[in-house]
Amino acid sequence: MANKPSIPKGTRDFSPEEMVRRNYIFDTIRSVFKKYGYQPIETPAMELTQTLMGKYGEEGDRLIFRILNSGNYLQELNDANFPFRTQIYNLDNRTLRFFSDSISEKALRYDLTVPFARYVVMHQNEITFPFKRYQIQPVWRGDRPAKGRYREFFQCDADVIGSNSLINEIELVQMIDEVFTALGVSVKIHYSNRKVIQAIAEVLDYPHRMIEIAVAIDKLDKIGIEGVNKELRENNFAEDSIEKLQMIMDPSKRTPESIAAFLSGSAIGKKGLEEVSYLSTNSKLMGIAEEKLFFDVSLARGLNYYTGTIFEVKVNDSRSTFTSSICGGGRYDDLTGIFGLPNLSGVGISFGADRIYDVLNELNLYPESVTAGTRLLFANFGGEDEMHSLKLLKQVREKGIAAEIYPDNVKMGKQFTYADKKKIPFVAIIGENERTSGKIMLKNMQSGEQQAVSFEELIGKIG
Amino acid sequence: MANKPSIPKGTRDFSPEEMVRRNYIFDTIRSVFKKYGYQPIETPAMELTQTLMGKYGEEGDRLIFRILNSGNYLQELNDANFPFRTQIYNLDNRTLRFFSDSISEKALRYDLTVPFARYVVMHQNEITFPFKRYQIQPVWRGDRPAKGRYREFFQCDADVIGSNSLINEIELVQMIDEVFTALGVSVKIHYSNRKVIQAIAEVLDYPHRMIEIAVAIDKLDKIGIEGVNKELRENNFAEDSIEKLQMIMDPSKRTPESIAAFLSGSAIGKKGLEEVSYLSTNSKLMGIAEEKLFFDVSLARGLNYYTGTIFEVKVNDSRSTFTSSICGGGRYDDLTGIFGLPNLSGVGISFGADRIYDVLNELNLYPESVTAGTRLLFANFGGEDEMHSLKLLKQVREKGIAAEIYPDNVKMGKQFTYADKKKIPFVAIIGENERTSGKIMLKNMQSGEQQAVSFEELIGKIG
Repeated sequence: MANKPSIPKGTRDFSPEEMVRRNYIFDTIRSVFKKYGYQPIETPAMELTQTLMGKYGEEGDRLIFRILNSGNYLQELNDANFPFRTQIYNLDNRTLRFFSDSISEKALRYDLTVPFARYVVMHQNEITFPFKRYQIQPVWRGDRPAKGRYREFFQCDADVIGSNSLINEIELVQMIDEVFTALGVSVKIHYSNRKVIQAIAEVLDYPHRMIEIAVAIDKLDKIGIEGVNKELRENNFAEDSIEKLQMIMDPSKRTPESIAAFLSGSAIGKKGLEEVSYLSTNSKLMGIAEEKLFFDVSLARGLNYYTGTIFEVKVNDSRSTFTSSICGGGRYDDLTGIFGLPNLSGVGISFGADRIYDVLNELNLYPESVTAGTRLLFANFGGEDEMHSLKLLKQVREKGIAAEIYPDNVKMGKQFTYADKKKIPFVAIIGENERTSGKIMLKNMQSGEQQAVSFEELIGKIG
Repeated sequence: MANKPSIPKGTRDFSPEEMVRRNYIFDTIRSVFKKYGYQPIETPAMELTQTLMGKYGEEGDRLIFRILNSGNYLQELNDANFPFRTQIYNLDNRTLRFFSDSISEKALRYDLTVPFARYVVMHQNEITFPFKRYQIQPVWRGDRPAKGRYREFFQCDADVIGSNSLINEIELVQMIDEVFTALGVSVKIHYSNRKVIQAIAEVLDYPHRMIEIAVAIDKLDKIGIEGVNKELRENNFAEDSIEKLQMIMDPSKRTPESIAAFLSGSAIGKKGLEEVSYLSTNSKLMGIAEEKLFFDVSLARGLNYYTGTIFEVKVNDSRSTFTSSICGGGRYDDLTGIFGLPNLSGVGISFGADRIYDVLNELNLYPESVTAGTRLLFANFGGEDEMHSLKLLKQVREKGIAAEIYPDNVKMGKQFTYADKKKIPFVAIIGENERTSGKIMLKNMQSGEQQAVSFEELIGKIG
């Protein structure tokens, strides 16, 4: 096995430089979550297959990574679930699924939402509701890898479950604003409300086809008004219904008033617009700039379980090539129902840490301080100099300062190169002179300046 | 699917209370790693199966969790690798392995050491050597779950690779001491040296059976001297060789002098004892108390790749029931050789975070401050009181203080219970009086005391 080693496609190693940048993003998000009273939980990477299957649609099911049972898993097969040799060349999905279920009962989590719902149901008796939890963990999807799409990536979720109050939505908007302000990314928060979309479906005379209408409208950005009309026609929506929809899709025609008039006959539409208005008014009161928050009736979100406000955050910076959303979420009224605990309303957001990382890299938005690591390297001359350096090093660390000694007595050039590459700003040089004088020769790696200093002066300079 | 949800055996959910305790452990370890100049990396949860297989012995191979290939993985089977229907009832290991390799090319990482070796070889041109890296990530093993043994658990590894210097070993001892001192756990650091064990094998006239001898000696704690003798006899070691070993195993007979005399004829033994002595002397100079560091010739460590110093850390507290090691490591001279980069010496330690967590729970060693979460809850009376509270809440958070508002206007008792359960120390009560007077009624949840305070006084009290 002296083949060149590699890693599975769609996965990544993170070097120290990358880790420091990623941790900066995680720390920023985490500190906002905490400041708003959200508490951390973690769930296992592996869930039982039955917990995940059927929750993400047919496409999602296919993208879930399944784990082979341990031991001699084939022994548990029998004539009923073991496909015929001739069958495997022409296998239907049902047989494949049946076989997979027989040899695999665990799978890697696909998102943090379903494990969270499972967690809430399992631990309902220990939880204090309303439960404000955050969770920052990797998820895995067997998607085709592409720019910004990985098979292992991190989600950073905050949800509050067990409260109907729209205060939660306002706070989520504040949190989104605070995270991206702290990261220096200019964003636009698009929001809408599933009740409004439901009302549109009613006005169009298709109250039971809300999701289809939402999915079509959601493509406006990509395929334009004509494209949406075409899709609706292909799906056999009546011509006069499609005609009614035009005002909603055309930003030049729609106004708050025209939308209100359009939905005036629908009770759920009225409720939806009230929620939209409440969120808009109070977010402004909480200091969210008007141009950051954008009521976007064309926003739909793919997932079925949303029932109220929905969010999607996009980069608002002409220098960025990122058009997909970097954060999203919404309110769901019955997420835990699938696990047997109905009627618990919740609302949450998920930050896509890996896309945010790509955006920050693209726009080079990391502050200087983010590279902070070791502050001081002791050069190594071996023998007594080494022992003297080790003792001083111990005292430096006792001050809480990250410091190290070059472990081997090699040429100075090599030791300086090490400091340089590791971006260590200072090197301490201890030779016989320094040992007898009690001073430390301190080299500033940026300026190249060298200076004999006392221990206290050293701490003052590097601390 | 309204079955009671559950999780795979051997895995765990972590509640907010547990997360805070776990993060305290991770943060403590991480801060020591950083202070010693170690830098973080992360590797994917999934590695290619060929990267992992054959690195952990036959038993290890069996415990690796394998991931089923995506898509219609059976289609890639053919007559050669698809077992006969009749075969599956009586399957040999080779056929099973062959079949598994055909339907699974990825696996979950089993430890952090092999992925680290793979990382170093893959990224050798970007790395500045000596490379001091730390890595804190979960690993997965299909072990039978038991007390202190999980199928998903965290390792916290620090390794330096590309340096032969024993300074690294001294620093690792300092790091172990610093971590456990910070956590308040009294420990004993057992150490030995594989060169010494190699020399013992030579003196016993079995220079090529070092590992077998090491494995037998390693069981001293469990089976006693007679047990070890018996095992060696069963393995056909000669009686006079076993006789020679008695002094080494008997703490009442062995002294530094008798061990030195025993190994005096072995060049590698002399080298090993020099290393032992260097580590002992210099660790003391670095302030490690003599009783903490214990040269233990009966320490062997199971893994093949160690070639020099080996460590194992055990709890030294009579109140604890934990006898297994909570940290271990050692020097290896050729870990990256398996991936095609030979002759790179390294040394490292691994903290078993989950066992440390269990020990801290058992001995109740968490400081008070570890529970710190939300500092202040605004009670919710709805309407204008609510809006006034939201504005004050915003100002509290702007001071960097974690605070929240109860999202719904429900009975005060319920709101206080929420604060109580979430261990929030203060509740702010804003009614009409407070709105007009500009004061805040602040309740101390511990003492029950209530007091009208200004905003500045509030910050002073809760900050």
